[in-house]
Amino acid sequence: MASKQSRAVRDAYVAWHAAATSGAERDDEAWGDLTAEPGGVDYLEADANGVPAIWAVPKDSAADRVIMAIHGGGYVGGSLYTHRKLYAHLAKAAGARALVVTYRHTPEHRWPAQVQDTTAAYRWLLDQGVEPARIAFAGDSAGGGLVLTTQLRARDLGLPLPAATMMISPWVDLEVASESFVTNRDKDPFFHKEMVHELVRMLLGGDGDPRDPRANPLYADLTGFGPFSIQAGEDEGPRDDSHRLERHARKAGVDVRLEVFPEMQHTFQMMAGRAPEADDAIRRLAEWVRPHLGLTPAVSAAGPRPR
Amino acid sequence: MASKQSRAVRDAYVAWHAAATSGAERDDEAWGDLTAEPGGVDYLEADANGVPAIWAVPKDSAADRVIMAIHGGGYVGGSLYTHRKLYAHLAKAAGARALVVTYRHTPEHRWPAQVQDTTAAYRWLLDQGVEPARIAFAGDSAGGGLVLTTQLRARDLGLPLPAATMMISPWVDLEVASESFVTNRDKDPFFHKEMVHELVRMLLGGDGDPRDPRANPLYADLTGFGPFSIQAGEDEGPRDDSHRLERHARKAGVDVRLEVFPEMQHTFQMMAGRAPEADDAIRRLAEWVRPHLGLTPAVSAAGPRPR
Repeated sequence: MASKQSRAVRDAYVAWHAAATSGAERDDEAWGDLTAEPGGVDYLEADANGVPAIWAVPKDSAADRVIMAIHGGGYVGGSLYTHRKLYAHLAKAAGARALVVTYRHTPEHRWPAQVQDTTAAYRWLLDQGVEPARIAFAGDSAGGGLVLTTQLRARDLGLPLPAATMMISPWVDLEVASESFVTNRDKDPFFHKEMVHELVRMLLGGDGDPRDPRANPLYADLTGFGPFSIQAGEDEGPRDDSHRLERHARKAGVDVRLEVFPEMQHTFQMMAGRAPEADDAIRRLAEWVRPHLGLTPAVSAAGPRPR
Repeated sequence: MASKQSRAVRDAYVAWHAAATSGAERDDEAWGDLTAEPGGVDYLEADANGVPAIWAVPKDSAADRVIMAIHGGGYVGGSLYTHRKLYAHLAKAAGARALVVTYRHTPEHRWPAQVQDTTAAYRWLLDQGVEPARIAFAGDSAGGGLVLTTQLRARDLGLPLPAATMMISPWVDLEVASESFVTNRDKDPFFHKEMVHELVRMLLGGDGDPRDPRANPLYADLTGFGPFSIQAGEDEGPRDDSHRLERHARKAGVDVRLEVFPEMQHTFQMMAGRAPEADDAIRRLAEWVRPHLGLTPAVSAAGPRPR
């Protein structure tokens, strides 16, 4: 049974849905309040080629191993501050640094502004002298799409690809065709088909092509990509984006691991430090990514949390 | 009239009171959710002579000017994480760095563990080569008492005193004798006399002396202390601690400014970045402290907030 703590994610979505249907402004910043402070992590803001970013530097982490993390929020929301703790938990568990990056949001900025920004940040990271074989990408929801479209764009620009990619409830399908939107409609209080279509409209405009392979990884050639670790919540509307992405990537020869967490909602990992399911999921990602970053498989035990 | 946003502080206290009377555990960590992220501030954890601390380093702040900040929480709660944003707002507005320090809490640790820790952290700060004339203390609630008892102890140990002291709703009276506990009882939903007496019991034990000048600054000799800037909320139970401290310090020749904010609750400055009263109060503290730190009086305009 889902933990009591994990229900906070669902409660947040219920509140978002209520705000959306009443036309009220949502307090996007409070999203990050779901996540506990990991402790033992420094946060340093950076200007990554003009793109705002935050380094999350866990104590005793490997300085030359970097998780470049792209936050979610439907391309319309989310920030360095809503997601710094989520990715700090992942970085701390993996023993690497995280570079959390953001990007211009809709509706003020349409595609491809988002992928331009994240690719500029990736180029900046490479310019710092970090080896691509020592970089993993991580992203949640819309950020789970951007970790792929950023690699597509990087490849077009002749940049090397990172060693591995972690995706938390990735939203990749701009056609919003996943069957799970129908089958999970009563279980997912917020990510309903019509809402996600509206996000696409803000992203691409009325005349954009939701099958453009540069924006929709399900239509892209993923040949040559490093391994994927994908996590989805069983009860979330966009769940089948993960299944479809898994199949599509396997066909291209990508090594893919997909984990579906029973009774969990979209990006339930936001409850890191509070809900056992979130901590378990983060630990699984960290254990998976360490060898891909050239670190020993064993994840070092977390130190005591400072007061 | 009090802003709608400032009411969030009162709402939090109502919830704390409900939790206390029902015996439920309070989620202390959520306290910090009241405060907006200031942005443009780096956070670096430090070990200050064995005392956990966080540097809050605003962009373009003076590296050799330091606000040593001691958080509140009745000696029983609060943390580096609940208060890092509050003091980052103050540091950013003042153009200095903040060193936020914590200390062992009650009921596990009784007085004088708290002031031992904060004094050890102050000694560490001096050992870093920061000039005492370039250091200001800041504290809220119990931290507003500790900024004074730390100086008393530092003086006893032969350490130099900081240039100035800022106090936000200081709680200094361990006899809990302020008349405002009676007159504001209906306005302050949480800081009631019997609750504060219980905090004292946890701090001093049943046989401690609430008039000990090393613990209760109202009985201490404050001669030679640098200037004070005190802020209190008109509607808070411990409000008269500020008035009594003002009179007591003036008699000792200390230069004191006291500001009482109409309709405001205890430590309403926690709403920094959200409630106009909190931002106004922080700005006033920052403008006051700059010349005491040898900075030009004009407070630099806040830069644009990063995405």
